[in-house]
Amino acid sequence: MANGFLQQLPKDRATFDIFFRRVPDEGSFVIAAGLQQVVGELQKLHFDASDIAYFKQLKLYDEAFIDYLANFKLDCEITAVPEGTPIFPREPLMTIEGPLVQVQMLETLVLNILNHQSLIATKARRINYAAAGRPVMEFGARRAQGPDSATYGARAAIIGGCSSTSNVLAAKQFQIPAAGTMAHSWVEAFDDELTAFQKWAEIYPDNSALLVDTYDVLKSGIPNAIKVFQQLVATGHQPVGIRIDSGDIGYLTKKARQMLDQAGFMQAKITVSNALDENVITALLQEQAPIDNFGIGEKLITSSSSPVLSGVYKMAAIERDGRIIPKIKISGSREKITLPGRKRTYRLFYPGTDKAFADVIALADERIDGRPLEVINSDPLSVKNPTVIQDFDARELQQTVNLAQSTDKSVFEIQRFSKGRLAQLPDETQRLTNPDRYMVFMSKSLADLQQALLDQRL
Amino acid sequence: MANGFLQQLPKDRATFDIFFRRVPDEGSFVIAAGLQQVVGELQKLHFDASDIAYFKQLKLYDEAFIDYLANFKLDCEITAVPEGTPIFPREPLMTIEGPLVQVQMLETLVLNILNHQSLIATKARRINYAAAGRPVMEFGARRAQGPDSATYGARAAIIGGCSSTSNVLAAKQFQIPAAGTMAHSWVEAFDDELTAFQKWAEIYPDNSALLVDTYDVLKSGIPNAIKVFQQLVATGHQPVGIRIDSGDIGYLTKKARQMLDQAGFMQAKITVSNALDENVITALLQEQAPIDNFGIGEKLITSSSSPVLSGVYKMAAIERDGRIIPKIKISGSREKITLPGRKRTYRLFYPGTDKAFADVIALADERIDGRPLEVINSDPLSVKNPTVIQDFDARELQQTVNLAQSTDKSVFEIQRFSKGRLAQLPDETQRLTNPDRYMVFMSKSLADLQQALLDQRL
Repeated sequence: MANGFLQQLPKDRATFDIFFRRVPDEGSFVIAAGLQQVVGELQKLHFDASDIAYFKQLKLYDEAFIDYLANFKLDCEITAVPEGTPIFPREPLMTIEGPLVQVQMLETLVLNILNHQSLIATKARRINYAAAGRPVMEFGARRAQGPDSATYGARAAIIGGCSSTSNVLAAKQFQIPAAGTMAHSWVEAFDDELTAFQKWAEIYPDNSALLVDTYDVLKSGIPNAIKVFQQLVATGHQPVGIRIDSGDIGYLTKKARQMLDQAGFMQAKITVSNALDENVITALLQEQAPIDNFGIGEKLITSSSSPVLSGVYKMAAIERDGRIIPKIKISGSREKITLPGRKRTYRLFYPGTDKAFADVIALADERIDGRPLEVINSDPLSVKNPTVIQDFDARELQQTVNLAQSTDKSVFEIQRFSKGRLAQLPDETQRLTNPDRYMVFMSKSLADLQQALLDQRL
Repeated sequence: MANGFLQQLPKDRATFDIFFRRVPDEGSFVIAAGLQQVVGELQKLHFDASDIAYFKQLKLYDEAFIDYLANFKLDCEITAVPEGTPIFPREPLMTIEGPLVQVQMLETLVLNILNHQSLIATKARRINYAAAGRPVMEFGARRAQGPDSATYGARAAIIGGCSSTSNVLAAKQFQIPAAGTMAHSWVEAFDDELTAFQKWAEIYPDNSALLVDTYDVLKSGIPNAIKVFQQLVATGHQPVGIRIDSGDIGYLTKKARQMLDQAGFMQAKITVSNALDENVITALLQEQAPIDNFGIGEKLITSSSSPVLSGVYKMAAIERDGRIIPKIKISGSREKITLPGRKRTYRLFYPGTDKAFADVIALADERIDGRPLEVINSDPLSVKNPTVIQDFDARELQQTVNLAQSTDKSVFEIQRFSKGRLAQLPDETQRLTNPDRYMVFMSKSLADLQQALLDQRL
């Protein structure tokens, strides 16, 4: 396509929006993530000698196009919502404007990164919401869909609220605390469990999280852990706690808590893992399972109950001979009809407060400044009754991205930003099950433009 | 753990098995994939200056361990089933033997790669089985879980039977045909659909697959495609066909086929995409939808209906002071109890044929050579009645992996190998829904060893 655009429409510029139509796990919103990696990839985007040789031998492309790639220089402008922003269906997560030939070429790279990281940040938000303040460790590297997926997934998990990761590469790369406990193989490597625990405590007297389910949690694991904790206390150390990774977590944690408390280890923490997700966490906490920390593996790092964020990259406008031509994609499925034109998205707050009540997508040249505004539900499956909204403060969601400079926000800064943005949303939008559908309007002018383009094509 | 093992058990060697307990999508077997990347990663495994600096500043490790990492030299032996092999629950996909400290360190890297690629190869096998010989193009890069996931996922998709990929990087890297058609943005970029199609045909007269659903498939897309096909024929070219990416694929392809045939384009192919998987393909072919090619995106590249292959890495034995000590992991969940000891897995064939009827996992020092063999169902949830099997040819599944040499088998060689191995399995094991559970036995000697270790611990 890029080869064709360079031949047929070499001077056109285009605007593409990235947005999604459905939220994973039937949630209300997505947590945007991946912008920092998109910027990093775009900064170094080029085609090396082996790429050029490959393109030549395909014998599909013009010489002019091959030259264009060999001398590729990015000339695009990007606006995007900051990482960590909760964002709703149909709202552009990112907008890219530049030469048509270039903007087309970026589609797969940019969508791949944003879809992946936003998916995992969204799942992490759900799991951390269920954990209700208890630390959640990201434990999924061995089950992630490939090496990158583990490392960038760990980054996204922190953005969504996790505290640490067992992925040491991600820990190094993004300054995340590395966390974990021994595995069963530590225990198996020694002749018996007690020896295994003692050797561990010898090496890590202040980091003595013991995995108690290699043979039998209640008959062997916890009694042996208690013996080792007593030895640690006798030598002036504070025992950390235990981890349980199999069996009935509710039953075992209650028994374990009793046994630890009776032995005087009220401070010893109980960490659990084993195929947990937000639903299992909710059920365990509902039955008051005494859990201090969660380790979440495959169900977080793959968002396994809803493993795809279906972000799309759609043309919104073409700039040709100085004219902006808004563009639309029509479809037999109503929800696949796009919002045409260059747009801006605003979050609307009750005046003078930090409490948001709705968003509005408007045309870029409209003024959205708190004066009465005629709007329409942007949900394509809703009834289209115009309403007037008034008395609001509007804050734009997208910001200009500086491609010449790397963003050096740390993942925990992004996590804090995200928590702040979440606090602005109504409680009923944040809950996990059957959340209230927060209203995303489009301005009357945008709705009229969409209708005019539909009428023109149908 | 590696730091601890180096201190406590520096001379021990260990054997770990990689296997899985459950097959994605309730299938009968997994297609093994990823070995070539595991070998590549192990060949280059090292810790650079920045890694060493990072480990030092964690202040968790001995100086001896940091030195060990700085001078890391892999000293492991690997056996594995060749890529493309169909393999069943509990059978070691790979076995790694080496210094305990090293073998422990490889867990996450090796599991990540094998779990990911085997998952996608397995899903691709299902989709290609449903497509019944029609070419399947891998179209998922923009929805994959990160960049690696797209590229190695495309590789695995070919192993599982796909014909081509839309991921040009994967195409280049693994010599796979790059495939795809125009996107909706090509059509939108021009003033009208007919012009868009004509411009495409001008550039690619012999590659004229036209996407007909940007505005309206039956009223606009196909009539315009037919006009362009007539112009192509008039100038001596053979029209390729159309792609439909939305709406009801069954209804639209039947109408499209009629319209193309009536216009004399019986040779024009119909390609479909849009959230397809093996179930939708089965349903479409059952209603005789006239489809020539499938493009499969997110549901293949993430195996979205079953997005995790839960391969595990479990200690089977320790070698200490010249003695081999078999090891077991016990659990409250029967299915989590491991098979101890150094083992070998055999596929059993009716004598003198290429038809397999069962597999058997035996201890490494047993002779499995067709003489009567006492075996037990290895499924931990089954009743344990010993049986004697006789009259069989046994072929070992794992092969020694040469770590000093890169395997340069092409992905299509692996695909052919896989098809050959699949043809050896009973038809009823290959079907997609409710497949027959192919029998995986363990030898009586292995079962006895497992029971002895269980008795010793319980």
